[in-house]
Amino acid sequence: MGADRVTAHRVVVVGGGFAGLSAVRALRRAPVEVTLVDRRNFHLFQPLLYQVATGALSPGEIASPLRGILKRQRNATVLLGEVEGFDLGARKVLLGRQANGRSSGELTYDTLVVAAGAGHSYFGNDAWARHAPGLKTVEDALEIRRRILIAFEAAELEQDPERRRAWLTFVVVGGGPTGVELAGQIAEIARGTLRHDFRHMDPSESRVLLVEAGDRVLSAYAGRLPAKAERALVRLGVTPRLSTMVVDVGEGSVTLSEQGGEPAPLRTETVLWAAGVAASPLARALAEEAGLEPDRAGRITVEPDCTLPGHPEVFAIGDMVRVSDGAGGDRGLPGVAQPAIQEGRYVAGRIRERLDGQAEGEPFSYRDKGDMATIGRKAAVADIKGMRFSGALAWLTWLFVHILFLVGLQNRLVVFVRWVLAFVTRGRATRLITGG
Amino acid sequence: MGADRVTAHRVVVVGGGFAGLSAVRALRRAPVEVTLVDRRNFHLFQPLLYQVATGALSPGEIASPLRGILKRQRNATVLLGEVEGFDLGARKVLLGRQANGRSSGELTYDTLVVAAGAGHSYFGNDAWARHAPGLKTVEDALEIRRRILIAFEAAELEQDPERRRAWLTFVVVGGGPTGVELAGQIAEIARGTLRHDFRHMDPSESRVLLVEAGDRVLSAYAGRLPAKAERALVRLGVTPRLSTMVVDVGEGSVTLSEQGGEPAPLRTETVLWAAGVAASPLARALAEEAGLEPDRAGRITVEPDCTLPGHPEVFAIGDMVRVSDGAGGDRGLPGVAQPAIQEGRYVAGRIRERLDGQAEGEPFSYRDKGDMATIGRKAAVADIKGMRFSGALAWLTWLFVHILFLVGLQNRLVVFVRWVLAFVTRGRATRLITGG
Repeated sequence: MGADRVTAHRVVVVGGGFAGLSAVRALRRAPVEVTLVDRRNFHLFQPLLYQVATGALSPGEIASPLRGILKRQRNATVLLGEVEGFDLGARKVLLGRQANGRSSGELTYDTLVVAAGAGHSYFGNDAWARHAPGLKTVEDALEIRRRILIAFEAAELEQDPERRRAWLTFVVVGGGPTGVELAGQIAEIARGTLRHDFRHMDPSESRVLLVEAGDRVLSAYAGRLPAKAERALVRLGVTPRLSTMVVDVGEGSVTLSEQGGEPAPLRTETVLWAAGVAASPLARALAEEAGLEPDRAGRITVEPDCTLPGHPEVFAIGDMVRVSDGAGGDRGLPGVAQPAIQEGRYVAGRIRERLDGQAEGEPFSYRDKGDMATIGRKAAVADIKGMRFSGALAWLTWLFVHILFLVGLQNRLVVFVRWVLAFVTRGRATRLITGG
Repeated sequence: MGADRVTAHRVVVVGGGFAGLSAVRALRRAPVEVTLVDRRNFHLFQPLLYQVATGALSPGEIASPLRGILKRQRNATVLLGEVEGFDLGARKVLLGRQANGRSSGELTYDTLVVAAGAGHSYFGNDAWARHAPGLKTVEDALEIRRRILIAFEAAELEQDPERRRAWLTFVVVGGGPTGVELAGQIAEIARGTLRHDFRHMDPSESRVLLVEAGDRVLSAYAGRLPAKAERALVRLGVTPRLSTMVVDVGEGSVTLSEQGGEPAPLRTETVLWAAGVAASPLARALAEEAGLEPDRAGRITVEPDCTLPGHPEVFAIGDMVRVSDGAGGDRGLPGVAQPAIQEGRYVAGRIRERLDGQAEGEPFSYRDKGDMATIGRKAAVADIKGMRFSGALAWLTWLFVHILFLVGLQNRLVVFVRWVLAFVTRGRATRLITGG
């Protein structure tokens, strides 16, 4: 903290997810001083979080400590802390209570990058959260794992056939990639992994319902992929309930309403939420400071170059924003890793350009590398630059890409070992009931 | 549950640790019906738990689901449930609340094997537990990991030198294998793993104190091994505080008293407890039913054949018992995996012999396969059948034996991968701050 360091251009990045971390890394040779603030000490590879929730991987296998990732990047400092808000006029990030038990004030920036991500949304029905956990954090994944495994244990103990049926009924709400992947994995657990595990009941009697309000799963995917994904789900034993709304979620039941039909209650002890996304509350904090109005999902719309309207020194990227197309609309980028990573790199490039004296730069442009979702063993769908394929080839591509993008050689090898052995043995080694 | 099954000899085993699980597995070809009751759904490989607590391994890598281990053993049933007590007269195990939310009564046995293990003891100072967590469960390990990592984060944020020093002072209480291994690993984290991770403080300024009431560490080990272990600890940066008692543990401090000296308070934010062991409360429940008096650690003394005095149909094994030598003393077996495993197999053998009509059998005899403890990178001590060695060879032996004894091929390979890479990179990939 000597006098020489104060002169460097200070960049504060809020959030160590795909967007924030890629911005920090892309600044590694820039003449700046970067501070990365996150309330967690690790980067989480969210695309594989559902594998933790279903007992195939351990949390430590899809997460990497931020300090470890950045330890050789001498211009980067990691700060473990909660961001409470912003003072855009004074160019300050306001911090909450810190790890040492003190409330340690604020961080001054020259350039701010906010990439605080998103959580789940229950569309105003926050009381459902208790009965239908979503999947965003490591803790969420362990809670979902606990619930799925407890349901089978309870079914084994239960004598009453109706109650047993409720324990063996799993309802996943939301037909996007997370919902499809969760439902497919639960069906595989019931029909494959646990096949020989119980003595008093047959786990393959389980029902796995995938509830989706729209008329198909993976609706963002192109061409025949949604239909193929649906068929693959059915083959695995999942029952897709399309054009169906969730009307209520309570203790031991969920009420569904098919389009035009009466609401019908369904007894189930396990409801999982993969339906709605809401931007981090920091999006709203930023919007209020800048005099903007967030959209219904709490996202703010940023300029085509990812800056906050009226604040060229502030970038906002990732799942908490929509990027304007410069013509009154937005880019409609999906809430997955690739747009976030590319936005992070783009923003780092803009910062470097500005320091080189370039005031104006190209707007952000997204290079779509394709969509993929895995459904189960040898079953996946992929759309890579218009090349659409499914089945075992898509599945192998999915495995390869996900191992490639995992952070850390140790995690890559460990996940590879787990997947090879899980394929051979149909085992899921990490199905522990912990916490709770 | 057909009529044919009721006729089989019913064995109930309480506890899926080393003792209970090895009894169940050794009964796989016996004409019995075994029910294994555990409140956790997995077997935990406790000898590596300290590696979870220090961010080298994930919980799922040292645990295996009991149902998975026993799925091919058709005469074994796993019951997830809490045992509340015993009715030895009626030959019943009394169960508490079960996974399906009901209190499902009792289990009738012909032979009972109780192997409920041990927890920590604070020698009557239970208020210390909050400030000085022990290491027995997966949850304990994650809490210790959280505390160690938070301490470094807090030190990085802390401006006040005295408070920073308190955050960088780690006190491990107890110089047995767990305490030695924990202290050694914390020193390695401070001096190796985190070397380049911080910008505002130097983690190698940490102090790691190993407090032991006796005059040497690993006092149960023979010959010069304790002295060698102590030297290895010092080389790693651990300060052994021998002949030193813990007088008090409070918020932010621990009070130590060297033999004959005045109690002196020491500021520290991290105290870890590896000192005392107390038998499971089920030992007391069993003792009360059988009219026995447990020892100070809550253990009951069983007959030389591991039966409960007066109850030849009840075996008690593992860390919750002392095995009588038949001459008024006890065997003095250490609380590690090998005696527990051998007792489990022995008891299974006795059950088979009885069913074959052999009323009397040989008493349990322990085959000492040796002691080992690892201190750090290329540093360990071993005493295998009187062959005492230390250093890199002992360390490699330790690694090999522990991978060999881990349950599950998947976990073995994963741990192997992690260890090889951790050795090369000095990295600890699973140092996540979760929960709390």
